[in-house]
Amino acid sequence: MTPFTSNRADSVMAQGELKLINGIRRWLGAASPESPFGIGDDCAVIPPTKNHQLVTTDPVIFGRHFDASVPPQSVGAKLLKRNLSDIAAMGGKPVAAVISLALAPDTSVAWLRGFYRGLARCALRYRVKIVGGDITEGPAGFVGAFLTLHGESTGTRVVTRSGARSGDRIYVTGSLGGSLLGHHHRFSPRLAEGAWLARRKEVCSMMDVSDGLAKDLDSLTPDLLAPALFEKNIPISTAARLSARRTNASPLQHALCDGEDYELLIVVRARSEQKRFERDWKKRFPKTKLSHLGQFFPRRQTPADALRLADYRGYEHLR
Amino acid sequence: MTPFTSNRADSVMAQGELKLINGIRRWLGAASPESPFGIGDDCAVIPPTKNHQLVTTDPVIFGRHFDASVPPQSVGAKLLKRNLSDIAAMGGKPVAAVISLALAPDTSVAWLRGFYRGLARCALRYRVKIVGGDITEGPAGFVGAFLTLHGESTGTRVVTRSGARSGDRIYVTGSLGGSLLGHHHRFSPRLAEGAWLARRKEVCSMMDVSDGLAKDLDSLTPDLLAPALFEKNIPISTAARLSARRTNASPLQHALCDGEDYELLIVVRARSEQKRFERDWKKRFPKTKLSHLGQFFPRRQTPADALRLADYRGYEHLR
Repeated sequence: MTPFTSNRADSVMAQGELKLINGIRRWLGAASPESPFGIGDDCAVIPPTKNHQLVTTDPVIFGRHFDASVPPQSVGAKLLKRNLSDIAAMGGKPVAAVISLALAPDTSVAWLRGFYRGLARCALRYRVKIVGGDITEGPAGFVGAFLTLHGESTGTRVVTRSGARSGDRIYVTGSLGGSLLGHHHRFSPRLAEGAWLARRKEVCSMMDVSDGLAKDLDSLTPDLLAPALFEKNIPISTAARLSARRTNASPLQHALCDGEDYELLIVVRARSEQKRFERDWKKRFPKTKLSHLGQFFPRRQTPADALRLADYRGYEHLR
Repeated sequence: MTPFTSNRADSVMAQGELKLINGIRRWLGAASPESPFGIGDDCAVIPPTKNHQLVTTDPVIFGRHFDASVPPQSVGAKLLKRNLSDIAAMGGKPVAAVISLALAPDTSVAWLRGFYRGLARCALRYRVKIVGGDITEGPAGFVGAFLTLHGESTGTRVVTRSGARSGDRIYVTGSLGGSLLGHHHRFSPRLAEGAWLARRKEVCSMMDVSDGLAKDLDSLTPDLLAPALFEKNIPISTAARLSARRTNASPLQHALCDGEDYELLIVVRARSEQKRFERDWKKRFPKTKLSHLGQFFPRRQTPADALRLADYRGYEHLR
């Protein structure tokens, strides 16, 4: 569905701000609490939390993160899920979100309704309250939604990207690659998994895979170390194999570079009981694959048969 | 200064994401703490607060909130100050912000540096930490910065927009109108005033004037009441008088409708000591005017000589 309408009466411009905000409240329904804890005041108010707060922000922009082939409900859900995945990657739980919209004057009200309905459904599912936002006129052809999500840590610990040491093992959830075949808006953020992993002492660092494993793993790699991954351990998705039939790239290239996997990339201490960790995972998440990809080595001691990740470039924004 | 460059080497596109993020850290300097409390992880981490948290979001978009005539430093400062004004309006103090940028590929690095330097300077002045964000490619001609600001209440109380009763007095800080002559990016958010007002028991509701007094006052007006304001009490700014010389509108119209005043609009209980409140204000803020505009009446009992605010339309977004 295209976000634009040629019929002025069906556009956001024809509604004006007040009607539109009332519409948004209605479309959000139970996902939007009453003011002052929700939409309608200068600020949204969130009760104090005992634990550390987590904040993340990610947008969806027409022509970049979605196009007319994606239903508006999926766009709204994707916006929230992209941000939920960041909260999952630090072992947190989501609390509340605000959204800043910039919309071309001819953005259709029907599209916007679908967007908010999809967002509300996803918010209810993951227990996030939509507490406020802003709506501004954008230039012709532009539809962008910028969400900021607040969460809190589920325990005393927040799992960051730093902390890996030589010998530590590298794991990933699920399977990788081929996101463009639909996974990029159909995925489920790994919130339960992230919270479980944050409670495990052997887990020392973590992130979500958004730009492709080959690129993202750099962020977990300390200065004097290098990751050694082995081709046989990479969980290549069916979508990556299907994608390879249409492109010049191999299934492995798709798995390492496509991005938008929204899986968790995990570093586990060398000195921990590998079998127990893997067995406990299997018991708790019997349906979600956990792959042991390899481990960190001092830079010049990586095994000769390890993948040369530098040869695989992930997706780089603004390039 | 135009945000765009025709020289590819000077564009954000030529830098790529990693270089750009390193540049942003450098430009922010002391305004950006180290990760995990700052830029560089999946989420920013903010320590728990004792009081209620406040969250607000407002953008600046090229062609709408600024143009090539506004220095990039002022654009960065305005983005933060718009949001600070919302925190002020609830009597809170600011804590931390995240920014989501959408930039056309030919956005110039020099412009972006100026933007961040102006933002950083303003952040240091108001003790806000810039803790994270996102940077995404936007369509040609688009430069938008979407900021979400977190604050906390300064006491046990958050002052909302609701609570006015018949007889309550209406006040405004500073003077109104003519924002387009420069005030819209040169104002100072009323943080100290807002926090002081929130501690005064006679203050029952409050907001900031962003769309013009004539429109914004609706948000403070309960269902069965109407505000009675008197022309002689409206603090018309010099800029409003100058604007009137260039337009068909009167100075009063400019004062009531221009918007972007970022002054505080305050409701004070009828049963309170008016003189003491005004005297205490003058003692605490000798340089900031406080005008008693009028008061709330039951709808059909408003005095005949009160201003008919419905005849003055403030700025309405998306119309």
